[in-house]
Amino acid sequence: MKRTLGVCYYPEHWPEHIWADDAARMVDAGLSWVRIGEFAWQRLEPKPGEMDFGWLDRAINVLGDAGLKIILGTPTATPPRWMLDKHPDMLAIDEQGRPRGFGSRRHYCFSHQGFRAESRRITRLLAQRYGSNEHIQAWQTDNEYACHDTTRSYSYAATEGFQNWLAQKYQSTAALNRAWGNVFWSMDYDDFADIGLPNLTVTEPNHPHVLDFYRYSSDMVVQFNREQVVEIRAQSVAPIIHNYMGRETSFDHFKVGADLDIASWDSYPIGFLSDRIEGTPAHKRRFLRQGDPDNQAFHHDLYRAVGRGRWWIMEQQPGPVNWAPYNPAPLPGMARLWAWEAFAHGAETVCYFRWRQAPFAQEQMHAGLLRTDSADAPALAEALQVSQEINNLPDVGTTRADVALVFDYESTWAWEAQPQGADFDQFRLAFSAYRACRRAGLNVDIVPPDIADLSAYKFTLAPGVMHLSDPLRAALADATALIGPRTDTKTEHLSIPTPLGPNIASLHVSVVLTESLPPDVGVPLENGGQFVHWREILEGDAPVQLRTTDGHSAIVGDKLRYIAGWPDDSTWDLILRDLCVEVGLTHYALPDGLRLRDTDTHRFVFNYAPEPMDWRGTEIPAAGVHWETL
Amino acid sequence: MKRTLGVCYYPEHWPEHIWADDAARMVDAGLSWVRIGEFAWQRLEPKPGEMDFGWLDRAINVLGDAGLKIILGTPTATPPRWMLDKHPDMLAIDEQGRPRGFGSRRHYCFSHQGFRAESRRITRLLAQRYGSNEHIQAWQTDNEYACHDTTRSYSYAATEGFQNWLAQKYQSTAALNRAWGNVFWSMDYDDFADIGLPNLTVTEPNHPHVLDFYRYSSDMVVQFNREQVVEIRAQSVAPIIHNYMGRETSFDHFKVGADLDIASWDSYPIGFLSDRIEGTPAHKRRFLRQGDPDNQAFHHDLYRAVGRGRWWIMEQQPGPVNWAPYNPAPLPGMARLWAWEAFAHGAETVCYFRWRQAPFAQEQMHAGLLRTDSADAPALAEALQVSQEINNLPDVGTTRADVALVFDYESTWAWEAQPQGADFDQFRLAFSAYRACRRAGLNVDIVPPDIADLSAYKFTLAPGVMHLSDPLRAALADATALIGPRTDTKTEHLSIPTPLGPNIASLHVSVVLTESLPPDVGVPLENGGQFVHWREILEGDAPVQLRTTDGHSAIVGDKLRYIAGWPDDSTWDLILRDLCVEVGLTHYALPDGLRLRDTDTHRFVFNYAPEPMDWRGTEIPAAGVHWETL
Amino acid sequence: MKRTLGVCYYPEHWPEHIWADDAARMVDAGLSWVRIGEFAWQRLEPKPGEMDFGWLDRAINVLGDAGLKIILGTPTATPPRWMLDKHPDMLAIDEQGRPRGFGSRRHYCFSHQGFRAESRRITRLLAQRYGSNEHIQAWQTDNEYACHDTTRSYSYAATEGFQNWLAQKYQSTAALNRAWGNVFWSMDYDDFADIGLPNLTVTEPNHPHVLDFYRYSSDMVVQFNREQVVEIRAQSVAPIIHNYMGRETSFDHFKVGADLDIASWDSYPIGFLSDRIEGTPAHKRRFLRQGDPDNQAFHHDLYRAVGRGRWWIMEQQPGPVNWAPYNPAPLPGMARLWAWEAFAHGAETVCYFRWRQAPFAQEQMHAGLLRTDSADAPALAEALQVSQEINNLPDVGTTRADVALVFDYESTWAWEAQPQGADFDQFRLAFSAYRACRRAGLNVDIVPPDIADLSAYKFTLAPGVMHLSDPLRAALADATALIGPRTDTKTEHLSIPTPLGPNIASLHVSVVLTESLPPDVGVPLENGGQFVHWREILEGDAPVQLRTTDGHSAIVGDKLRYIAGWPDDSTWDLILRDLCVEVGLTHYALPDGLRLRDTDTHRFVFNYAPEPMDWRGTEIPAAGVHWETL
Repeated sequence: MKRTLGVCYYPEHWPEHIWADDAARMVDAGLSWVRIGEFAWQRLEPKPGEMDFGWLDRAINVLGDAGLKIILGTPTATPPRWMLDKHPDMLAIDEQGRPRGFGSRRHYCFSHQGFRAESRRITRLLAQRYGSNEHIQAWQTDNEYACHDTTRSYSYAATEGFQNWLAQKYQSTAALNRAWGNVFWSMDYDDFADIGLPNLTVTEPNHPHVLDFYRYSSDMVVQFNREQVVEIRAQSVAPIIHNYMGRETSFDHFKVGADLDIASWDSYPIGFLSDRIEGTPAHKRRFLRQGDPDNQAFHHDLYRAVGRGRWWIMEQQPGPVNWAPYNPAPLPGMARLWAWEAFAHGAETVCYFRWRQAPFAQEQMHAGLLRTDSADAPALAEALQVSQEINNLPDVGTTRADVALVFDYESTWAWEAQPQGADFDQFRLAFSAYRACRRAGLNVDIVPPDIADLSAYKFTLAPGVMHLSDPLRAALADATALIGPRTDTKTEHLSIPTPLGPNIASLHVSVVLTESLPPDVGVPLENGGQFVHWREILEGDAPVQLRTTDGHSAIVGDKLRYIAGWPDDSTWDLILRDLCVEVGLTHYALPDGLRLRDTDTHRFVFNYAPEPMDWRGTEIPAAGVHWETL
Repeated sequence: MKRTLGVCYYPEHWPEHIWADDAARMVDAGLSWVRIGEFAWQRLEPKPGEMDFGWLDRAINVLGDAGLKIILGTPTATPPRWMLDKHPDMLAIDEQGRPRGFGSRRHYCFSHQGFRAESRRITRLLAQRYGSNEHIQAWQTDNEYACHDTTRSYSYAATEGFQNWLAQKYQSTAALNRAWGNVFWSMDYDDFADIGLPNLTVTEPNHPHVLDFYRYSSDMVVQFNREQVVEIRAQSVAPIIHNYMGRETSFDHFKVGADLDIASWDSYPIGFLSDRIEGTPAHKRRFLRQGDPDNQAFHHDLYRAVGRGRWWIMEQQPGPVNWAPYNPAPLPGMARLWAWEAFAHGAETVCYFRWRQAPFAQEQMHAGLLRTDSADAPALAEALQVSQEINNLPDVGTTRADVALVFDYESTWAWEAQPQGADFDQFRLAFSAYRACRRAGLNVDIVPPDIADLSAYKFTLAPGVMHLSDPLRAALADATALIGPRTDTKTEHLSIPTPLGPNIASLHVSVVLTESLPPDVGVPLENGGQFVHWREILEGDAPVQLRTTDGHSAIVGDKLRYIAGWPDDSTWDLILRDLCVEVGLTHYALPDGLRLRDTDTHRFVFNYAPEPMDWRGTEIPAAGVHWETL
Repeated sequence: MKRTLGVCYYPEHWPEHIWADDAARMVDAGLSWVRIGEFAWQRLEPKPGEMDFGWLDRAINVLGDAGLKIILGTPTATPPRWMLDKHPDMLAIDEQGRPRGFGSRRHYCFSHQGFRAESRRITRLLAQRYGSNEHIQAWQTDNEYACHDTTRSYSYAATEGFQNWLAQKYQSTAALNRAWGNVFWSMDYDDFADIGLPNLTVTEPNHPHVLDFYRYSSDMVVQFNREQVVEIRAQSVAPIIHNYMGRETSFDHFKVGADLDIASWDSYPIGFLSDRIEGTPAHKRRFLRQGDPDNQAFHHDLYRAVGRGRWWIMEQQPGPVNWAPYNPAPLPGMARLWAWEAFAHGAETVCYFRWRQAPFAQEQMHAGLLRTDSADAPALAEALQVSQEINNLPDVGTTRADVALVFDYESTWAWEAQPQGADFDQFRLAFSAYRACRRAGLNVDIVPPDIADLSAYKFTLAPGVMHLSDPLRAALADATALIGPRTDTKTEHLSIPTPLGPNIASLHVSVVLTESLPPDVGVPLENGGQFVHWREILEGDAPVQLRTTDGHSAIVGDKLRYIAGWPDDSTWDLILRDLCVEVGLTHYALPDGLRLRDTDTHRFVFNYAPEPMDWRGTEIPAAGVHWETL
């Protein structure tokens, strides 16, 4: 498969007479794909029911005639102002009880049936008109579900929807009361219609109440997306994609992905670094203009799983953005490096965001491949270089990784509802494991929590998975794996099971006591590292592999082992070294910023550091990419 | 008097068939008391007016037949969901104007007359049924008044109640306008019905307006509690107790206590350490698993005063809790040490919270004496050890202390309304004095602000008491005492008196200028210490005992003296050393973590440090308790 | 012109029998002016329409008969409680959607037409009664517009007013949609009545939408003030003044000032230091009791421009205030120094706030010239000293400065709407330039953004001016000036112009890329300094004067030059040194705290440091003022 590049374009932002020239320049830059339409509802339907497809017809023709393949987005992330007259209560309500106003984007409530009908209608109209258009080679549903904290709405529509969802799930309030433990503080319900949303309570709401609301909210995103997919599939055979937002866990991307053909994500390495990715001040200074060296890779591996092998970058940062607290420019070369890291992880296509920087509105300070005055922006030359390199390199394939890392959206919600320690965050825990794998030069597959077969992997990591699915429980029993901390310590209702977890036949251990720790206190281990944030006291006769210096078990088990705390980085490194030695995997101790990724045929080496790095005698410049055959 | 242990138990959480075994194990552990019922309203009254006492009858019988004495709680902290249908406006309103939702606990507004009637009704029904039950040996009203910021409600019911309260207090708006100084910004009122609550104003509301609202809110707690007491006393001779929450000053505990027979408090030493008690990071690390070495003692002495000599621990932390930002496990031995510190301060009974850790709902990560799987948790053995030690030790009595520390709830509200410096907090000031007494090995009685006789004390401390009561003013005039800063510098209406305070016959000094200081600036004293947070400029001919290095008076007076600033710790130590020498009291400079408390017959030595400590040749291990006859 | 002193007085706060003595003491202290009345609406109109002028008549007589000149304030900052019964919706609404309650001050919405009529009515009544009173020598409108974040109200009245304002400005929604770039996220409007206020949106609202709302809100202040001016001018020839609040930029002070005769501001040097003025902790410790050495001077120069040469201090801090996070007392001498710094900058009058400290209400801890018990407070003697010094010093005049600094309120709003970097604040940028001028001992005129003639200045600084006015654009073309960063990089609609700015005929440069930087990262310059917060990449053939160490242009141009970043302090110093050398201006490198200001005849030297400083052989004590003839 030949990898391709693309770009995001907004014909409605520009005079029609420059479209053709834009299209020609895109082709000249080596771009194959162009995404359009995803914010254009008002231009498509200026007044309720009065459609204006003419400009879009013409834009599609101009772009398509230039040889570009088009991804057409449904415009549902930006319902026009007139829709509020039809559906005044379609606005999402925030956790503080305030309606979220018109004037930016994503102001709709996923539970609002009136807006859901509008969403199906506009999708149907687009699908009917363009479903068989030869230039439309892919579809995008909505835009960045969940972005700006928009998954969860505390509206009346959500309350009603949640009550119905609970009624279907539990069938009786008695069952719900039992599952949630509502007896605890006289919180029992007699009628599903009495159950409110878990916001604005006096002290914390019941954790299973919260978890079920988070599940419901995720399901609404899945339903909303599925409704669009149904409309498009009725008219088109082109693949359907959603562009997920990185570092966003409020809905189950695997479940949305199950209805789609391809996963894609929006990759803003520098935008994320300043406040969405954990790191010391020194780390953030070092990678200020490159982004965290493992964040993109993590998401690449995640969305390869979400897309069941097929995935894209739908939006790739090309220069400074406008929305992070600080917005520095990338180091020269990074727009190329980021693309190659994606391809090395199996991306089919990388689209830059956006073609020309807009001189107006909220994102006017967000760079594009062109400047506002249509001159080339720095990233344009890098895109061209990538397209030429693609042409010169054979298909490198996508490797099956040796290491599996289980990532479970429900666990992020469970621990958000019940962190028990202020710093416990499931993404952070999983990402700390992932980073250690990257330091060791390992290729990783991120896998969903219902995976049934781990036999292709040399070993598996499953930290913090609150409750194991039946297939995974069975698969782990025979696997070489490290699970814990917190793994399988809860029932599916977020209560503590009897017998105490984890409950896997081959692992004779129970978590009998738990403690969370402030940032300046750790629990020292006999190997010189320590547990941070979290530690557990274990009971059981599983063999002890590592102890804390105060004599408690830290890692127990044989092939399948359990770790009773959150390892610091040095401990992760030792754990992975031992696992690699045990299963016969080559491992490295890569310097800070140098990263590897293997494909079927090649090894790619990326230098995220701001200075040159040596890779086995080859000097790789800052922002440099190197590949060699395996 | 023989000291006793107890435990909190929730029969409604567990299958009935295990109650008897639980009861037997409690007795085996040396426990005498069991508290039940305080969150069970929904189980007692599943639907409005449909009572179900059967299960409680049986639980009382099982527990009582096992030999346990029962404290029965009124369940008013957890009104069931159905009550909202009867009283939709019974929900408290927070300071931001939002109703506080159902789904946790304490969601009621103390001013709501409909809920007040419900509270009297359920209390009456319980009192009628169990008032003469031989097993019911004590009663608890509600649970942890004020917890989760629930004293003050900004509801319509509170507005009406406040207006009536003001009308009764001031009789005319003219008097109120004068008392509050409403002329200042044209804030005068013509009608009590025009007076709102002091929230959401453009800039700060008038301080006496705030203070009166805080007084009103406190009075509502007093009234609410008294209404339950009246109902219980009509049916029962058993003592009535409330379990106060530590570090909570939003209502006057002395006034609530005046209607009760015994005071109790809920002691969570580790839970409080992380964010409710002041301390440096190093201090918090050192006492991470032991709690602040003076916080429990402070509250013991406070509640001994609130209970007029009779007091308990109603809930004693036995292991990690769930509600602090970080929740580490106690050092082995602390569950014993905490109990003995309470007994040494005169506690009659210490009840651990709770018997068995609940596997469900909000507190599922809160440890008990048993684990969720009914195995012994670590604290169970410590409780047993304490019960055996009690049996072997003669009654040690409760000493009358040599030092009195005045603690005034009104002053906490006054300075909350008018801190004048961001760090000025009355609890913090009083606690800084208390900590110094503990470092000096002194026994302290905390006394109420209307105390009329200080003659039993060698000396008295009264920092920050905004306005002296007539009895205390008279008592201080003849006492050896240190008052200030800020003491008696205001009228009862929180204005500045003429002549300037303090106004005590025997003390010729006035505070003529005040300044507050940022944390990194102090005012050096000639003794090497400094004033922090706060300093005052004095005028008057009282003799000067200490000066600032810039030549101002720092401490003036003879037997009765005034301190013109907030002393740092070293200055407190010097002040107490001088006072002790002056009155002939033995004093110590105890090492960090070693603490003393004398009873009538014994001296108890507690080691809160994480390492062994020497006490006059005896090594006391970490978490160790030592006693010797006096 | 003889400089004068004055004081703020509240006869309604004190018994009538002490007014005469107060007046006599004011005269004895050398005070000439007394401001009264500005919070007395309730005393003037206790019930709607029932006026009580008697007390004010008598107060004016007593004060005037003592020889004092009176400034009479309109009381509109404190509408009485009864007005809410007439106009329940006159309360401002905060950005979170909550009405701002009665009980402090400034609770009105500038857009509310009902309140606007009340404001005109009370002003008319006062003007009619006192317009020709010989003692009334000046008027003050309202009090501290904008204080407590009161310029912007998110009320229904503001929404309607904003819609009308937009309709008049844009004439058609099509023009507005184009100007704002509403096509961007389908944000177009079909009807002005559909346009809401830019609060509570899901993610950031469109920046030009915000900017226009800020412009509208500023215009409402201008209108409100003008309405009072019209009423007063109809009855009185006395000058009309407003007392602006320092460090407050939410409305255009130049536009309000255009309707007034004299500008004044309320100077609280210590109150501002702790949280309104940027500074390192060491800086804040050093100037804890003196205030920032440049903050007062900046505002003096600003309000001299706002008043077109005529300006006062209406409120001068005399001791500790009550409203800052920490409220230390001034160093002895500062109440004198602050007055002289004002006079040296051309102030006609300095009024201390307030005569006697109020013993009641919100400001009871705010010092005055008298204590609450009527004894002299420390500042009284300093005021007397200043009045004597004034008598002994000839008229020193007001110098025309050599350096112009452009300050533009619109730019503060533009960058507030679109900071692009979390630390970008226009006041902070302009103040960093001003501070550098003060370190160099330069006299500065702050000038408005529509200035048309810069020929009187040796050089001009214009940092961060988002869009140059036509006159300023023309004036800069021939001036010696340094502009940038960000200057003239936007259209008047806050979009990016084509061609890229700055667009000045004589300056061949364009800003083609922008980046914002976190606080711990700078861009090094070849002169040893660095850019902080912000840097730009330039294109064009203007000669390069300074480069970054990575080879980009940092300063380009000839006489008119552009700086492509935010200089750190050392870079500002080098820039000013070079400019001074170039234009032949004497410059200094003043030590930290020593500051100069020249008048027509004298040089004043001020020592803000807490220790003595040497000025050319003369030791100036801490808080000392020195003057010498030029």
